[in-house]
Amino acid sequence: MQMKTADAIVKAIMIADQPESFVTRRLEEIELEFGGMRGDRHFGITAKSDVRQPMYKKGTEILNRRQLTMVSEEQLAIIAEELGVEKVLPEWLGANMLLSGFEELTTLPIGSRILFPDGTGLICMGENKPCIHPGQMIQVNYPSLPKLDTRFVKAGYKRRGIVCAVERPGMIRVNEEVRILINDVDNPMQ
Amino acid sequence: MQMKTADAIVKAIMIADQPESFVTRRLEEIELEFGGMRGDRHFGITAKSDVRQPMYKKGTEILNRRQLTMVSEEQLAIIAEELGVEKVLPEWLGANMLLSGFEELTTLPIGSRILFPDGTGLICMGENKPCIHPGQMIQVNYPSLPKLDTRFVKAGYKRRGIVCAVERPGMIRVNEEVRILINDVDNPMQ
Repeated sequence: MQMKTADAIVKAIMIADQPESFVTRRLEEIELEFGGMRGDRHFGITAKSDVRQPMYKKGTEILNRRQLTMVSEEQLAIIAEELGVEKVLPEWLGANMLLSGFEELTTLPIGSRILFPDGTGLICMGENKPCIHPGQMIQVNYPSLPKLDTRFVKAGYKRRGIVCAVERPGMIRVNEEVRILINDVDNPMQ
Repeated sequence: MQMKTADAIVKAIMIADQPESFVTRRLEEIELEFGGMRGDRHFGITAKSDVRQPMYKKGTEILNRRQLTMVSEEQLAIIAEELGVEKVLPEWLGANMLLSGFEELTTLPIGSRILFPDGTGLICMGENKPCIHPGQMIQVNYPSLPKLDTRFVKAGYKRRGIVCAVERPGMIRVNEEVRILINDVDNPMQ
C-alpha cells in the first residue's frame, strides 16, 4: 500500500545551549546523536518528568521523547498574523528546527518519520502542546502590544509544532530537503 | 478533558533469553530497565534496523521502539479458534507480556501508556505486524494440521499485539493490574 509522503526544506537549525534560557540560537549544521543535539537543554536518552507527564511524580527519570522540537514557517506566519505582529521567530518558541513547505506540521501523526539526505532520521512523537514561555518571549519583543502572552495560547493552538526523537543519528544542514513519511495510525509503520 | 482509560491484568511475563530462539519463557516478575528486559533478545536503547524499517540500510543502528511485545489473551483465543487449534501460547509468538481484560490491545494507539503498580510505565509504540516465525511455531505444535503457518498470517491480522518501550523502569509482576491510558491521536498526551 502506498504511504503518504511530503517534502519540506530545513530553513533553520537552532540549539538551546544558554543555561538560563529556553530561547534557541541558529546554527548552519549539526551532528545529531541518539538523544538529540548535544549541548541542548533537552538532550538526552532520558529526561526528568514534569507537568506534561502527570502520571509520574515530578522529576522522575523517564524516556525522553521530546528531544527536539520542530515548527513550521507557515504556521508561525499564521500565529503572527493572528497576534497582529510582524513576525514570530522560532527561537522565541525554543524550537530546534524550522521547516518550510509542510503546513500541517503540528498535526503530523505520532510515528511519522522525517528523513534527511545524510540518512539521519527523526521520529515524530506528537504535537508540542503550548506552554506560557513563548508567549512571554513574544510579548518581550513587542512590548507595546497588549496581552500577547495570553493571546499566544489561542493563536498558537495546533500551530506550535511537534516534538521528535532521533531515530538514526547523523548530520543535518540548513537548506536541506527532508522527506516526511506520514504515519497511518490505523496501519502504522514499524 | 477526560482521557479514556482501561484496566487489565498481567497474566504472564516472558523473556526471550535463549540464544537460538525467539520463543519466550515465563517468569514471575522482573525489573524492567530503560531498554526493556535485560537478557532479552530485543533489549536495548538502540537496535539494528531490519526489513521493518526499509528506509534504512539493513543493520543500521536505530532507536529501539520494539523493546517489549505484548499480546492479549482474548485475541490469542480468537486466533486459536480461527485456526481450529486448542490454544495459541504467547511464548510461540515471542511475546514478553500477556494481558487479560483489554480485548482491543492490538489497536491501542501509539503514545498510549501502560502503568504498573510499582510506578513502572510503558509507552505503546504501535501494532506489532506479523512475521512468519510464530506461524511456524504454531505449526510445530500441531504438526498434523495443514498450513497453520500460512493461515496464521490471516488469523493473526490485527490480533498480534503491540510493541512497547520502557518509559519509566521498575518492577512488574504476574497478576498485577495495569492501568492503560488510551492516547487520543488528535490530542495526544505529551
